[in-house]
Amino acid sequence: MTQDTARTGLQLRSLINADGELQLSLTPVPTPVPAANEVLVRVEAAPINPSDLGLLFAGADITKAEQRGSNREPLIVARVPEAALRGMAARVGQSMPVGNEGAGRVVAAGSSAAAQALLGKTVAVLGGAMFSQYRCVPVDQALPLPPGTTATEGASCFVNPLTALGMVETMRLESHTALVHTAAASNLGQMLNKICRADGIPLVNIVRSQEHVALLRSQGATHVCNSSAETFMTDLIEALIATGATLAFDAIGGGKLAGQILTGMEAAILKKRAAPYSRYGSSVHKQVYVYGGLGLGPIELNRNFGMAWGVGGWLVTPFLQKLGAQGTQRLKERIAAELKTTFASHYAGELSLLEALDLAKIAVYAKAATGQKYLINPNKDVG
Amino acid sequence: MTQDTARTGLQLRSLINADGELQLSLTPVPTPVPAANEVLVRVEAAPINPSDLGLLFAGADITKAEQRGSNREPLIVARVPEAALRGMAARVGQSMPVGNEGAGRVVAAGSSAAAQALLGKTVAVLGGAMFSQYRCVPVDQALPLPPGTTATEGASCFVNPLTALGMVETMRLESHTALVHTAAASNLGQMLNKICRADGIPLVNIVRSQEHVALLRSQGATHVCNSSAETFMTDLIEALIATGATLAFDAIGGGKLAGQILTGMEAAILKKRAAPYSRYGSSVHKQVYVYGGLGLGPIELNRNFGMAWGVGGWLVTPFLQKLGAQGTQRLKERIAAELKTTFASHYAGELSLLEALDLAKIAVYAKAATGQKYLINPNKDVG
Repeated sequence: MTQDTARTGLQLRSLINADGELQLSLTPVPTPVPAANEVLVRVEAAPINPSDLGLLFAGADITKAEQRGSNREPLIVARVPEAALRGMAARVGQSMPVGNEGAGRVVAAGSSAAAQALLGKTVAVLGGAMFSQYRCVPVDQALPLPPGTTATEGASCFVNPLTALGMVETMRLESHTALVHTAAASNLGQMLNKICRADGIPLVNIVRSQEHVALLRSQGATHVCNSSAETFMTDLIEALIATGATLAFDAIGGGKLAGQILTGMEAAILKKRAAPYSRYGSSVHKQVYVYGGLGLGPIELNRNFGMAWGVGGWLVTPFLQKLGAQGTQRLKERIAAELKTTFASHYAGELSLLEALDLAKIAVYAKAATGQKYLINPNKDVG
Repeated sequence: MTQDTARTGLQLRSLINADGELQLSLTPVPTPVPAANEVLVRVEAAPINPSDLGLLFAGADITKAEQRGSNREPLIVARVPEAALRGMAARVGQSMPVGNEGAGRVVAAGSSAAAQALLGKTVAVLGGAMFSQYRCVPVDQALPLPPGTTATEGASCFVNPLTALGMVETMRLESHTALVHTAAASNLGQMLNKICRADGIPLVNIVRSQEHVALLRSQGATHVCNSSAETFMTDLIEALIATGATLAFDAIGGGKLAGQILTGMEAAILKKRAAPYSRYGSSVHKQVYVYGGLGLGPIELNRNFGMAWGVGGWLVTPFLQKLGAQGTQRLKERIAAELKTTFASHYAGELSLLEALDLAKIAVYAKAATGQKYLINPNKDVG
């Protein structure tokens, strides 16, 4: 067995205490010794995905966060609102590691041949706790990156790519033929646009600014609707008539958008069909899956879209379980093959673990603004 | 072929004209001569179901309705609000017959043996346009009632019974083991309570008054929650823990109730399980099907029930298509066998066609209040 590790490494932790105070800190944790079928990864790049922000900040008002402790050992504290706290009873008092995915170099390996084969390789990992200097994972959770691929290039090769591909697979499994996507100028949205262009799937992109319309058009998107425009509903219905989309993936969740999409779909269906009037609306099933929570308010559905509709939560992990191991493997192979093209991610910058707890940096990356995705390199600025 | 009919019969009609005015009238229509495989039914009892009210009144403000025309040939007019009108473009200018189901005597029959066999029998029909003196339908749409059953007893043997049984079948098909039902003191709700008691299915009844709690308890219901009570959420969660229900059928649709049910289900699941905290909530799928529109406002979903959830429209007809002919036949046989017990309906009164267009009567039956269901007998007070 090869040893090439410090005795402890730092790990970013998020804790809610009994008083409802959120505490973020860097905790030294013992660096594990890999078991026979495990590898130890020195994490070099881990993206801060919107899904990480939820665990990290727990709905706390981060604009009012304060730093306690020293600059070298900071403790960031913020208050979790009562309403958010109710749903988090199960994590109160638990110091939780963060970071769904990332990449780095295998610096130690267990005795098995499979583990030894990865030694020295750069691998991507979907394993949680990736905002850590070292992560020990089973061999089958470490995906070796193609030669010539850096940790930065491979850092985001699970969450967004599998989510985007999962949307397309869901469309096929549930017998739809086109897609609608909101917050469509996001990293994920740009990826989905590339996939749909490559696979010939009609896609209606919904964005919130003219700047994002231009961005997606520059990437070859055909249908881009600006929900801030006065003509939004007309534009949307036109795009829905052109594409025939009856399935939407919505990153926002709060507000009226999910309902507007269903309304637009029903209007498009009724315009194209010459079916007799039914007070139950068309018989075509229209579905919106909410996969994110960028909008925190309630979802408001004004029911003027008939009775054949559904709105529901969607997460990539349960979907992949439904798709099965073989299907998931097929998606992963495509991701590996197109990592520098279809599935390339762009970052606004790279943060060390200390920088990730810097109030000024937090103020920027906590917004999860489009084009402002950051990477954490837990081994940046470390001796 | 037997002839026992007048040359024309009256039919209740609902029309929206181009100005957005709703017009209700009694129109004389030629009484059809049955084709070989058809029967002519003299309708004697047809319930005014909530689903009929939607087609009849088209969302018009019926409290401000006026009568034009004579007392013998009334024309009731009311204004359809702009918002409601938008969804009804397809029916503007079409004079529409009303009445989903009903029962009566076969007074003429086509030449086929199957048709002749029904002559003189009392049959139930699910065929639309049942608020008519005479209805001609294919033989297979006419269900002969068991001997000794009156038209009144058989009038409601499709919509509510098939809907209630459809809910139970949906529960089984989608792998749930218990049910939640709202507006549970309705005719349909009482029926569902009887079915669930007979079949040993745990049922959480949600009602809006203490009076309805008492009514359902008097019929043997175990779990009845009053959504007007201050303790509603606590009561609901307790009932959900006791039953393990993860599927709800909601007659109301508007407001916060659907979301409250999902919140209660998630809370019940988390209380029973010792799973580790996940910011995505439990992995147990929670579903609310909205099958009615008693609440006209938007559905408001406050998302504090994790990611494994769905809300959608549900209608009995598409469900029966999914269930298939054999499954539907099984349900119909059960209904016929239990027509005077499980599937017995209760009515507040019987109206002639003229009375159905009486403003004072409309003011009562348009409310669709629990315990205030009316029957129309299109041949009442007719020479």
